[in-house]
Amino acid sequence: MFKTSMAITPTPTTFAPLLFAGDWERGLETAAELGYDAVEISLRDPQAQVVKKLEEAIRRSGLAVSGVATGQSYYMDRLSLVSLDPSVQRKLLDRMKGFVDFAAHWGALVIIGGIRGTFEGEQRIRDAQRQRAVEAVRGYAEYAKSAGVLLAIEPINRYETNFINTIEQALEFIEEVGAENLVVLADTFHMNIEEVSIANSLERAEERLGYVHFADSNRQAPGQGHINFPELAAVLRKIGYGGYISAEILPVPDSRTAAKLAIDYFRSLELRLA
Amino acid sequence: MFKTSMAITPTPTTFAPLLFAGDWERGLETAAELGYDAVEISLRDPQAQVVKKLEEAIRRSGLAVSGVATGQSYYMDRLSLVSLDPSVQRKLLDRMKGFVDFAAHWGALVIIGGIRGTFEGEQRIRDAQRQRAVEAVRGYAEYAKSAGVLLAIEPINRYETNFINTIEQALEFIEEVGAENLVVLADTFHMNIEEVSIANSLERAEERLGYVHFADSNRQAPGQGHINFPELAAVLRKIGYGGYISAEILPVPDSRTAAKLAIDYFRSLELRLA
Repeated sequence: MFKTSMAITPTPTTFAPLLFAGDWERGLETAAELGYDAVEISLRDPQAQVVKKLEEAIRRSGLAVSGVATGQSYYMDRLSLVSLDPSVQRKLLDRMKGFVDFAAHWGALVIIGGIRGTFEGEQRIRDAQRQRAVEAVRGYAEYAKSAGVLLAIEPINRYETNFINTIEQALEFIEEVGAENLVVLADTFHMNIEEVSIANSLERAEERLGYVHFADSNRQAPGQGHINFPELAAVLRKIGYGGYISAEILPVPDSRTAAKLAIDYFRSLELRLA
Repeated sequence: MFKTSMAITPTPTTFAPLLFAGDWERGLETAAELGYDAVEISLRDPQAQVVKKLEEAIRRSGLAVSGVATGQSYYMDRLSLVSLDPSVQRKLLDRMKGFVDFAAHWGALVIIGGIRGTFEGEQRIRDAQRQRAVEAVRGYAEYAKSAGVLLAIEPINRYETNFINTIEQALEFIEEVGAENLVVLADTFHMNIEEVSIANSLERAEERLGYVHFADSNRQAPGQGHINFPELAAVLRKIGYGGYISAEILPVPDSRTAAKLAIDYFRSLELRLA
């Protein structure tokens, strides 16, 4: 009933909640073997050489691509939506067009999460940073619209950003940008820290909900912590959610085991709801 | 049945989970007025001038002191248990003796949380940092023992430190130090991120549990997020916990309202268990 996905990246990294980091070949093989419908791909630079090879391998795997995650542009290259530096904004626009083109080819959506960056300085500056981000996303949304691509705004917990921590704040931001092809990405790990009630906030997002990350309270595979996923799956069904559920999780104890734990758990959720 | 406390500090700070930061006179008045049994006090330097005035005001208030929090020595002065710099360790030893003396006077315990600092560098260095911390705490514990003071090891979530995130890790550390007067401080906000099951981990700590912070999943007053406190209160009763429950919470929407929400919630928990 749910479409399943797992988050991987061609970039070697040891701390991010991404499976098979740097080892995308094994990531794709494992996703296909375990029966996932799709992979979510975290890319640093959509123009990088590795992306062509990656796309060939995806084609061979038979997997779909559910989403393109973009946070590495901030974490590794300090390109952020809140930057008031025009040269940063130009570079970011190039990146975002590349992400949208990649996503358009695969029928995926583009995730706007960590790439927002963090507000800094006095209030006057923060207001300008927010305005800059609103205008930037308005521009990306227009470009994405002509390519038939959705942009997904992901609330992230307070320790990683001060710019959109909750579902409510994501909905306000979407309202402010005023584009039809913006949706909300709900990540249960972040919601466990930020939302008064995870279930109520999912329900509040309703038809704006475009993508879901299921990661448990400790950011491991669902079922490894204490989030009540059966309750959340019931809410998703109630609001008629038809998008992906993606495992954006830490490779604990290792990538393959985590991927297996997640898909087994997704299946057990479906059985419960069936 | 539970002894109640709320966490305040004489240090002006806007982001910490401390009530009436910098305004300890109003903090003490409010705690007494609302019927708290005690205050937990976060101190930067126990030798500072303000501490004498603070102690006089505590005496007048009729409140007890439940605990002394020490993290400011790291956050503001970069003194940490993992430091390999002998001059840092000397300064820290002075501070810790001061904290213990203060605590001894009030029958409070001394909290070892943020002051641990963070492991950095290659594994060989991290091993040395841990060894340094074990020896330092062994020394503090000996000094504290002669003053009849307990030291409480507080696991803190991954975003704030990589040195003791879980109750299990705190128990291992206590075992390694090997002192009788070391206990575990369980903070529900941190546990919500780190523990597979908050209730099971509380139960696991058992007679080593010496202090409890009740803060909700969003670090606001208990009852403002989604942690199941009635379940946790039942566990505390089951294991015969007789220590304090302290509100170490964000001043949201403001300090007085947060303090009132917390004490009202503590009372509702007692009514449920009665």
